[in-house]
Amino acid sequence: MTIHTHTNDVDLETVQTLARAIAAEPERAATTWRASATWTGAFRSEVRIRAFDPIPSDEPTALGGSDTAPNPVEQLLGALANCLVVGYAVNAAAAGIDLRGLDVDIEGDLDLTTFLGLGGTHAGFDDIRVTVRIDTDADAEAVGRLHDTVVATSPVAHTLQRPVPVAVALAEGA
Amino acid sequence: MTIHTHTNDVDLETVQTLARAIAAEPERAATTWRASATWTGAFRSEVRIRAFDPIPSDEPTALGGSDTAPNPVEQLLGALANCLVVGYAVNAAAAGIDLRGLDVDIEGDLDLTTFLGLGGTHAGFDDIRVTVRIDTDADAEAVGRLHDTVVATSPVAHTLQRPVPVAVALAEGA
Repeated sequence: MTIHTHTNDVDLETVQTLARAIAAEPERAATTWRASATWTGAFRSEVRIRAFDPIPSDEPTALGGSDTAPNPVEQLLGALANCLVVGYAVNAAAAGIDLRGLDVDIEGDLDLTTFLGLGGTHAGFDDIRVTVRIDTDADAEAVGRLHDTVVATSPVAHTLQRPVPVAVALAEGA
Repeated sequence: MTIHTHTNDVDLETVQTLARAIAAEPERAATTWRASATWTGAFRSEVRIRAFDPIPSDEPTALGGSDTAPNPVEQLLGALANCLVVGYAVNAAAAGIDLRGLDVDIEGDLDLTTFLGLGGTHAGFDDIRVTVRIDTDADAEAVGRLHDTVVATSPVAHTLQRPVPVAVALAEGA
């Protein structure tokens, strides 16, 4: 058995301190997150998030892009995969489950008809399937409870599963 | 006026050839996209998409992370920003609108209560607001039509605005 100061290296104390603070003052649960993209020509762009290096985006050549980076719908699936990883890591730590490894594979089906202006009203994913591989000594029942907790509390999964208002406005003078 | 072989550097011919192929054989519109994340300890993970270099993910220190990369909910907003950029670039090219610049700023509100296990059933974004700044000589009416077309055909925006089935399964033997 691996000995960690923090199970799964997770700083559970910070998470639990935050949870207690929010339980005491529920308005502290409100957060706002930001991202900005700048077009760099053709189908390429760069996203800036806080002070991190810009992250490139492009489209495959089959879609007319120059294929220098993952495309936006792949990035969306990547965000879901990363979110689920955080969910398993933190909830495993809270349950005292030691993880040796954790992989999340995602695939999603998307019909290009609407994006290409050929009709229809839904340009987005029709179906997203996720397979999670967990390497642990924990028993199947504990892993099943962990799984249920993660699915019930995942910010990105819930954003995708439920309708979210997205208001897109042109800046004044644009 | 800038002279481009392709307006906005967009390879419109490839896009239009694909659209004609799909109009002739609608089943060719079906696409499947993939992403995989591997946990690298604490709240860190790396996403692999096709043959591109792994992209890191982390959480801010306030949430117990080590703050080495954007977090998953920020990545989700980034995917939306990049998707809208592609939409404006391609539809502007199709409309003969020459873009000098294009920036997309996004912010989204998310309540941490459910993620932190403090109750509630929606861990995701409650509201996402997008501001698009377009630098062009095109008149306001043409820009307005462009905007309407992009919003009506955006794969990531539609994925967020509508409920999408997301099935999360544990791999057998996990």
